Amino acid sequence: MTQIQSQLKNWQGVPFTNVIIDDAFWRPRLEVLRKVTLPTCLTKCEETGRISNFARAGGLMEGKFEGIYFNDSDVYKVLEGIAYSLMSERDPELEAEADRIIELLAAAQESDGYLCTYYTLEAPDSKWTDMEKHEMYNGGHLIEAAVAYYEATGKRTLLDVACSLVDHYDRLFGPGKRHWVEGHEEIELALVKLYRVTQEERYWKLSLWLLEERGHGHGVGEIWDKKEWGPAYCQDDVPVRDIEKVTGHAVRAMYLYTAMADVVHASGDPAYVDALHRVWAHTVERNMYVTGGIGPSRHNEGFTHDYDLPNESAYCETCAAIAMVFWNHRMNLLFGDAKYADVVEREMYNGALAGISLTGDKFFYVNPLASKGDHHRVSWFDTSCCPTNLARFLPSIGQYSYAQTGQGIAVNQYMNGEAKFVIESGLNVKLKQTTQYPWDGKVKLSVNPESSGFLSIRLRVPGWCRGYKVQVGGKYLSRVEAQTEQGYIVISRTWSQDDTIVLELDMPVEIVRARQEVSENIGRIAIQRGPIVYCLEQTDNSELSYDEYTFSAHERLQVDHLPELLGGVTILVGKNGEGKPCEFIPYYAWDNREPGFMQVWVREAEDEGLYSL
Amino acid sequence: MTQIQSQLKNWQGVPFTNVIIDDAFWRPRLEVLRKVTLPTCLTKCEETGRISNFARAGGLMEGKFEGIYFNDSDVYKVLEGIAYSLMSERDPELEAEADRIIELLAAAQESDGYLCTYYTLEAPDSKWTDMEKHEMYNGGHLIEAAVAYYEATGKRTLLDVACSLVDHYDRLFGPGKRHWVEGHEEIELALVKLYRVTQEERYWKLSLWLLEERGHGHGVGEIWDKKEWGPAYCQDDVPVRDIEKVTGHAVRAMYLYTAMADVVHASGDPAYVDALHRVWAHTVERNMYVTGGIGPSRHNEGFTHDYDLPNESAYCETCAAIAMVFWNHRMNLLFGDAKYADVVEREMYNGALAGISLTGDKFFYVNPLASKGDHHRVSWFDTSCCPTNLARFLPSIGQYSYAQTGQGIAVNQYMNGEAKFVIESGLNVKLKQTTQYPWDGKVKLSVNPESSGFLSIRLRVPGWCRGYKVQVGGKYLSRVEAQTEQGYIVISRTWSQDDTIVLELDMPVEIVRARQEVSENIGRIAIQRGPIVYCLEQTDNSELSYDEYTFSAHERLQVDHLPELLGGVTILVGKNGEGKPCEFIPYYAWDNREPGFMQVWVREAEDEGLYSL
Repeated sequence: MTQIQSQLKNWQGVPFTNVIIDDAFWRPRLEVLRKVTLPTCLTKCEETGRISNFARAGGLMEGKFEGIYFNDSDVYKVLEGIAYSLMSERDPELEAEADRIIELLAAAQESDGYLCTYYTLEAPDSKWTDMEKHEMYNGGHLIEAAVAYYEATGKRTLLDVACSLVDHYDRLFGPGKRHWVEGHEEIELALVKLYRVTQEERYWKLSLWLLEERGHGHGVGEIWDKKEWGPAYCQDDVPVRDIEKVTGHAVRAMYLYTAMADVVHASGDPAYVDALHRVWAHTVERNMYVTGGIGPSRHNEGFTHDYDLPNESAYCETCAAIAMVFWNHRMNLLFGDAKYADVVEREMYNGALAGISLTGDKFFYVNPLASKGDHHRVSWFDTSCCPTNLARFLPSIGQYSYAQTGQGIAVNQYMNGEAKFVIESGLNVKLKQTTQYPWDGKVKLSVNPESSGFLSIRLRVPGWCRGYKVQVGGKYLSRVEAQTEQGYIVISRTWSQDDTIVLELDMPVEIVRARQEVSENIGRIAIQRGPIVYCLEQTDNSELSYDEYTFSAHERLQVDHLPELLGGVTILVGKNGEGKPCEFIPYYAWDNREPGFMQVWVREAEDEGLYSL
Repeated sequence: MTQIQSQLKNWQGVPFTNVIIDDAFWRPRLEVLRKVTLPTCLTKCEETGRISNFARAGGLMEGKFEGIYFNDSDVYKVLEGIAYSLMSERDPELEAEADRIIELLAAAQESDGYLCTYYTLEAPDSKWTDMEKHEMYNGGHLIEAAVAYYEATGKRTLLDVACSLVDHYDRLFGPGKRHWVEGHEEIELALVKLYRVTQEERYWKLSLWLLEERGHGHGVGEIWDKKEWGPAYCQDDVPVRDIEKVTGHAVRAMYLYTAMADVVHASGDPAYVDALHRVWAHTVERNMYVTGGIGPSRHNEGFTHDYDLPNESAYCETCAAIAMVFWNHRMNLLFGDAKYADVVEREMYNGALAGISLTGDKFFYVNPLASKGDHHRVSWFDTSCCPTNLARFLPSIGQYSYAQTGQGIAVNQYMNGEAKFVIESGLNVKLKQTTQYPWDGKVKLSVNPESSGFLSIRLRVPGWCRGYKVQVGGKYLSRVEAQTEQGYIVISRTWSQDDTIVLELDMPVEIVRARQEVSENIGRIAIQRGPIVYCLEQTDNSELSYDEYTFSAHERLQVDHLPELLGGVTILVGKNGEGKPCEFIPYYAWDNREPGFMQVWVREAEDEGLYSL
């Protein structure tokens, strides 16, 4: 085995249906997602003609195409969210609604398998002339919805539509056939999903071919002609295996890297490993906001240059934060390193979660780290990728909690609840977490193998955590056993029924500073506690004015958990550098009350002291 | 009331005899102090002729003076320690021994009240010709011993000797009489102690006069002639009320500022307040080691220039760290600010405590923050101020735990145990602390007034602590009530019998950095957990070589409490920047096992990441 191949751990994901989330943080959000967000999104899709486009393309309705050429994808994404919701809880009404919509989707598919309502209705003779027109992007989301719906219900209708569509792609494109570079990556990761559920090898191989098409000048259309964008915008500037830096549109980049990781995982071929490591380091070490947000620029909805992380103008598209989860989860499965699950956590609790209101029906597209008071969530957008992405991301969030490592289980996320596994040896294991995470760092894990058996349990010690203790069966682990490997405590032993692990993670209030190269944050500090990044909102800080106050890194903050505030949050209460009262709330919870300013990075009060502590 | 006067809180100390320390940290150390350290020091005083000097000066023995001119003070300091020990636990044998020694001290007093065996034996005609000969320094320690012994036993012999001595000073020196500047400050703070026990006003007024003598060119003798030292060495360069910076010999400086604070407290006159604030800020913000150690230079046993804090050559005399406690405790009583008690804590658990071995019979004079392996505690020194200072400092350590604030009690230090108070209203109150401090940040305080009564309880939130929670009677305090004032949570209410406060202080593993101006610590980090500063010792880190390794600020350390190691310590276990195992122990516990290197400030591993957390 080469050195690179030996890096590949090739862990398997654990489906979210194996994971019951029963806590005070996520479960209420998931209920709202199901009861409010999904219906809201469906209604918006109806009202804006997104669903009617299919009916029209299928000849079931008169009329022109409504909206923008990628609008098909919104319907698919909502369907995908519905599918995940049905996986958690069957709902005949919702299923009936989904089936009705699927009928329309199927009707819109042309006889040769092509499916994209924009071209069918507007420009049937112009297909495949412009990489930017999201034809395969739409197709990818269709695939994801189809796979999810099939897994949820066993129904094949949409899956058959997806397979026909991909067979159509397969006939037109591929080795020896037409070139194609899809402007907005998405199809590539979707094809791997389709392969996994159908076991049809040519699906992931088509993905590989599409990835290999990039960076050789095969792009066509508007984007290629726009000098200001250039091929870096859609990651078509270099062959993917040669990628050194993250560039361009953030969501596209993240979906690309996700697909590259998927292809490595599916094929076992390490060809993309070096590029993945390089671009991960470049993204996370030079281009990521403390909230996990990425892509500072509204011009290209993406990246500019290293360390360019302005707070007020931060673009940080919600979809990009969600896509960071997708990518980092794959990286965790590939390499078995907790640092990727750290990024998943950062997005889950901050950058991605901020995208949705507590009421579940308002959304951010753009997620700044500072606002003078005029940035608010709204109920829909002309380009509504973000609401629909949240609609499918959140219901399946349990899939990020665990991984199967062959010899055992890796615990990647801490949430009160239960999960079940079948490890490689065939042993059935249940694991129950008792914890108040993310508000408290103590986690009790009950390990319940159906019979006594050998099993390796990995516990992630989050990257923000500097001190921990771990007990098994009431005894602290020995120094050797309690050491971390790639960020995990590894406990390999024979487990009996109802063995208990108690993990205590230091979860103090912490001051965060950014590297000096981040010029906007020179002289500023942020507050974090556990995975939660905090912010100041005007409504709690009436004596303060936007950016006209300081905060001392030595302030002692009262840690106050308020179950009735903002769905139940721990707030931090103290005085600012000018002696005025100040309160911090979790960043994800901002803009859910009265409008006003918000800041994550605040000016640090001058410190005469010698030591940071 | 002027603004300055309104700053004066004038809290009262709570005698250590009101405080029962019953914990796993201090009590064993105090037992060793009593059973080993005090007898050891007495034996050394015998062996080195320190006690015989008195017999000889008293004509009870033949022979010349042995040792150095300040050696009398060592005997006084050991006596003072014995007195404190007797206050905690009467011991007829020890008391008899002390009485025997006191007879010798009394015999050595000349008929006019003068007492200083060096001059009596060596140069009776040269008294008061050299400020550096420690005549009043010796006298001050005599006073402290006399006051303590009287308070312990009710016996007046030594107290009468002290009063006669001071009356002698009073006759020779004072307004309209001879000038005098004592080279090594000590008498000034002792005179205030004598005043407090005798209520004789002229004693603190003599102290005031002595303080006012400084800075006007009244010094005589060797020190004044030594150009390299200059009057700054013994703080005789400016009038004390004009002091802006800490200068010179560290112990002298600290004793001076202690006396200045004592005189403000005794007189109510705020004349020295501004100078005290200036010099405190200068000391703590520009000239203090993270261990609390002060005075980097072996040349003057003191200060050089701002931010000069080298690790390996650090002088950090044990006596200076102890003196920082004396001074900061007074400052806390004067101004009611927790930041002074923070410094007391820093010294108690680090800079001062490091001065004594766990076995109680070996001592450091010099306390470096790095050692290649050749710096060790020894059983005695020719100049043995440090062992004898530890011998009297530790047994009375309970006096720093509380203060009486008029309307109530301030809890300055957390230790398992009990204390009793009578507050201004006459109400008797008992307070019981249940805690594993300094290893754990949770403190339960049972408040037990003899009858229901109004009382203000202040709880210090340590300066290193960024997050806390506080409950009274099982309910979390409201945001307003839980706010800190000058570093204290203030709970003012009517208390019933057995009311319970639960204070939870975040006590995570913390990375400490020094200000950039501290050139030796650029690129270095230290570890702290709660009040404990950590270090690396070779004996736990066999794979590491002195300063040839790094440590990452993002390392996750296992927090492991080992009751059998070094008297019971929490160690921190992880890997260093090169992936080798590494362990940190508390700094105070270094050099108690096999010799080897030690470092507090370690090289920081290069960090590519964006955020400190």
